[in-house]
Amino acid sequence: MIPELKYDDKGLIPAIIQDVTNNDVLMLAYMDEKALEMTIKTGFTHFWSRSRQKYWKKGETSGNVQKVKEIFYDCDEDTLLIKVIQKGQGACHTGNRTCFYRTITKT
Amino acid sequence: MIPELKYDDKGLIPAIIQDVTNNDVLMLAYMDEKALEMTIKTGFTHFWSRSRQKYWKKGETSGNVQKVKEIFYDCDEDTLLIKVIQKGQGACHTGNRTCFYRTITKT
Repeated sequence: MIPELKYDDKGLIPAIIQDVTNNDVLMLAYMDEKALEMTIKTGFTHFWSRSRQKYWKKGETSGNVQKVKEIFYDCDEDTLLIKVIQKGQGACHTGNRTCFYRTITKT
Repeated sequence: MIPELKYDDKGLIPAIIQDVTNNDVLMLAYMDEKALEMTIKTGFTHFWSRSRQKYWKKGETSGNVQKVKEIFYDCDEDTLLIKVIQKGQGACHTGNRTCFYRTITKT
């Protein structure tokens, strides 16, 4: 059962995607209610693209799909955490395994 | 050096907070440029509260502060991932170690 979630003023909720095998955070993307339903129904992550204004299945083109293992929601009901098995080379379109491959250096 | 980051139309960027000791995702909160600067300068996470419209240092009241170990940013420069040492009992105001303590059951 999907709980009552708090979507933002654009109807979106951020979804943190975490690799279930090593707990690396792979990416963050946005879902609306329908994208979440598609994710639950198919077992693969689907998002709403804010730049392209359309639904996308992660890895649809690249083959780097994400098989959903578990979906968590937070105490405020305004963020999702989705543990996945990442297929292919990685989550990032740059070819990196995770989108968080750069650090901010302390000044 | 802080890279060029993409803040949203409210001047905010989501920050995923991850426990550096076990890679658990603890919470997600929002920073503006100043909160990020305060975080870097002090070495403890600071956020912008959207509900209270003010800055807050995580754990200022509870003592459950977060010592920053490493700050990452993603390929799109619109999300932060901050690895921390979580002090005290946990990150969540409910008393749980992580804010993501509930799962969505598949229907």
